[in-house]
Amino acid sequence: MIQSPNDPRTRDSRTDVYAVILAGGSGTRFWPLSRETHPKQMLQIVGEDSLLRETIKRIHGFVPGKNIWIVTTEEKAQDIRFHIDSLGSLAKEIQFINEPLGRNTAPAVGLAALYLNQISPASIMVVLPSDHAIPDPEKFLRDLKLAVQGAEKDSLVTFGIKPIRPETGYGYIKVRPTSKMKSRGLLKVERFFEKPDLKTAKRYLSHGGYFWNSGIFVFKASKILSELQKFIPSLHKKLLSIPPSAIPARPAGRGHAPWSEQYATLEPISIDYAIMERSRDLLMVPAKFRWSDLGSWAALDEVIEKDKTGNILRGNTINIGSQNSTVFAGDRLVATIGLKDMVVVDTPDATLVTPKERVQEVRKIVETLKQGDREEHLIHKTVERPWGSYTVLEKGDRYKIKRVVLKPKAKLSLQLHRKRSEHWVVVSGVAKVTREEETYLAYTNESTYIPVNTKHRLENPEEVPLQIIEVQNGEYLEEDDIVRFADDYGRQ
Amino acid sequence: MIQSPNDPRTRDSRTDVYAVILAGGSGTRFWPLSRETHPKQMLQIVGEDSLLRETIKRIHGFVPGKNIWIVTTEEKAQDIRFHIDSLGSLAKEIQFINEPLGRNTAPAVGLAALYLNQISPASIMVVLPSDHAIPDPEKFLRDLKLAVQGAEKDSLVTFGIKPIRPETGYGYIKVRPTSKMKSRGLLKVERFFEKPDLKTAKRYLSHGGYFWNSGIFVFKASKILSELQKFIPSLHKKLLSIPPSAIPARPAGRGHAPWSEQYATLEPISIDYAIMERSRDLLMVPAKFRWSDLGSWAALDEVIEKDKTGNILRGNTINIGSQNSTVFAGDRLVATIGLKDMVVVDTPDATLVTPKERVQEVRKIVETLKQGDREEHLIHKTVERPWGSYTVLEKGDRYKIKRVVLKPKAKLSLQLHRKRSEHWVVVSGVAKVTREEETYLAYTNESTYIPVNTKHRLENPEEVPLQIIEVQNGEYLEEDDIVRFADDYGRQ
Repeated sequence: MIQSPNDPRTRDSRTDVYAVILAGGSGTRFWPLSRETHPKQMLQIVGEDSLLRETIKRIHGFVPGKNIWIVTTEEKAQDIRFHIDSLGSLAKEIQFINEPLGRNTAPAVGLAALYLNQISPASIMVVLPSDHAIPDPEKFLRDLKLAVQGAEKDSLVTFGIKPIRPETGYGYIKVRPTSKMKSRGLLKVERFFEKPDLKTAKRYLSHGGYFWNSGIFVFKASKILSELQKFIPSLHKKLLSIPPSAIPARPAGRGHAPWSEQYATLEPISIDYAIMERSRDLLMVPAKFRWSDLGSWAALDEVIEKDKTGNILRGNTINIGSQNSTVFAGDRLVATIGLKDMVVVDTPDATLVTPKERVQEVRKIVETLKQGDREEHLIHKTVERPWGSYTVLEKGDRYKIKRVVLKPKAKLSLQLHRKRSEHWVVVSGVAKVTREEETYLAYTNESTYIPVNTKHRLENPEEVPLQIIEVQNGEYLEEDDIVRFADDYGRQ
Repeated sequence: MIQSPNDPRTRDSRTDVYAVILAGGSGTRFWPLSRETHPKQMLQIVGEDSLLRETIKRIHGFVPGKNIWIVTTEEKAQDIRFHIDSLGSLAKEIQFINEPLGRNTAPAVGLAALYLNQISPASIMVVLPSDHAIPDPEKFLRDLKLAVQGAEKDSLVTFGIKPIRPETGYGYIKVRPTSKMKSRGLLKVERFFEKPDLKTAKRYLSHGGYFWNSGIFVFKASKILSELQKFIPSLHKKLLSIPPSAIPARPAGRGHAPWSEQYATLEPISIDYAIMERSRDLLMVPAKFRWSDLGSWAALDEVIEKDKTGNILRGNTINIGSQNSTVFAGDRLVATIGLKDMVVVDTPDATLVTPKERVQEVRKIVETLKQGDREEHLIHKTVERPWGSYTVLEKGDRYKIKRVVLKPKAKLSLQLHRKRSEHWVVVSGVAKVTREEETYLAYTNESTYIPVNTKHRLENPEEVPLQIIEVQNGEYLEEDDIVRFADDYGRQ
């Protein structure tokens, strides 16, 4: 999906507009499908690709690849790099800004603004959450162009979504009644209200003239910095102590930024609370595109088409007489009978069952798992890697079984393990194995053995995928027992 | 749990009483925990052992092991033999009667009666379902002794359970009002009514004097045969064409009985409809023992203690605010939020979610699976064998991965596979491997390879369990690709 320069969507590509994609979210709301190492933005819940890759492709219809920046945390950066790798040459153009740790959106936006301000103060930033669904990219780009016009006149521009229910999870934007449909769709914002209580939300809904805040913002780098200075000067001052040239992540994507300590002292605050509720220079584009922030499993109802009885059924399911229920299954069978307004989500190692009206409490489940030092909130059984993927099939006492899939021509790092040996059985394709000084091929239905403390490398020399079953033996079988000597992906 | 002759429970063992355990059920109601190859009677749902083994141990408090007969189908017989193997020497005493195919309970009881009648016509049969829960074995045995006294006087004796709800799934027994508490607890039965509609069931409940039929019967072999002749002469006549000496299953438990064709022509009918509704010689013991036929997942409420909010939670579960719900999990996590009167059952390859009031519809799920030629109704991922067990960890294209566990000193058959090769990695214990003419030991963290068409045998020479990971390769990977040369368990 890389756009060529002649693609109609990139013809009017704006080189003075920068997309800042916020991708630091930790993915508790879509558990068990989302995990800390595979947060919501990496899920393909709606549309044809993951939410993050869809976000990138959508904005790439308007800005060149090198103007796309991803702000995430150092912890998540490597997984996200691997995740966007499938975008090919576009992925290589994208720049990362890695926060040493998550500090909510105001510091993240400030960081990007600080860097952009040094490059070109008049440049315009489009701040985009990485985990929203926008099924109409063309309409989105048309509205975005309007917003950019507003930002050029030194306003902060947001997108308002027409509310359809008294949602308490969103911010609300009140536009000036007199300004309706002026300025070719750019409306003056009277006030911006962060998440209201239910009574207030109902009043907003019945009153009219209120819109949901989409969380997408457009402004000049210089403007957002001056607003930060005005409304939250302590944050602004601390930000200024960071040397702008040190802000972009180094290519290896490893190690702490030199400004880590300053950043850790920043107050965690959202851009909405910090600026949007206070600024007087707000404009709003009433969105013509469909939008969902996919705030919970129940939010799928807004963006996925339901069957006649209101169900959304994905994967291996058998359903008898359920209504208005969502069942997300994988390869394992999920059989449901007579459910009403329920959500069932099945993954290889965990299943969630909850009424839709209580989906928000999935956070509590994740919290319980964290407190219990469990893994079900952390990892998925299948882990994506730039060379392919691995799936943990079973963990036992002193052994672990993985299926490892290598893309054509891919290779793992040259590595060794201090505490485990590995048996590999090739079940499809051909493996090129390096074991200390020897290099040999292992064909389908052949096996090989990598003893403890033995330098080795697994490669796929062919044009078809290679699949091996790995049986690990040892007292300690965690991923961090790895010493890397050479790696195609810059890992240490 | 084998009773020695001096055990108080076997001191008054009745050598003229025979226990006929009906174990031909196919286990659709407890899907996905029950499967065709692992039906309900093999499940440990309540109590400390499987329902079948509990049934055997319970009645072994009253009759000697050689007087315990299991009636099942040829198809299930081998799995059931393997299943009761853990009862040790008692298992070896138990005799099997294998129906060529299931024909409901009247033919099954008739078959056992025909055989017993030849041995000793005055002997008493206790007919026991293999899949009921009776948590008070001592009370059961006390009531059973009463019933035997009734049977000795040529009555058909049943056990009545005091009804607690207008259940439509059970038969009802009406006792003569005048006979109450006569004959030391043996009551005269006025009539026996098979499953009523709800209105009738409600009337029975409010009227009093009605009991649920427990499905446990006691009578002389000669008496049940004469009743069969009286009420269902066609069945009786066809049964008589079977030579009684050919009725017990041959030790190998394989192949069809010589009377298969006659048996297939028998009308499938329950003993309740065929005899109990019609006979005039019925007595009933009002049961002092707790009882459940475990007719569905909802029936667990009767026999498993619930927590304060009415939940039954088993296995790896996290629950937030559910009420009156049953969650049966295994190793995989099942997280539930705010369920009310629901059942969730999780197994390695399938999950069921249903309100309690619709649990009976699980049959429809199993039906759908059968029609779709799927396996989730058929097998469990872990399959018990007399030498241990195997678990299918993954089936892929041209490969299959199993974890195989061998009990101490156990061995598999000497065998070969025509279409697959096998890689074995020992992950705990020591394997003794026979491969054509060679025999060698493979220690933990060693592997070996069995090519196609190679005679081989796997043994555990040690006193601790042996665990191997087997990776099969080939076009065809089903269990029936096996040629056996020698087997400790009489399999061909």
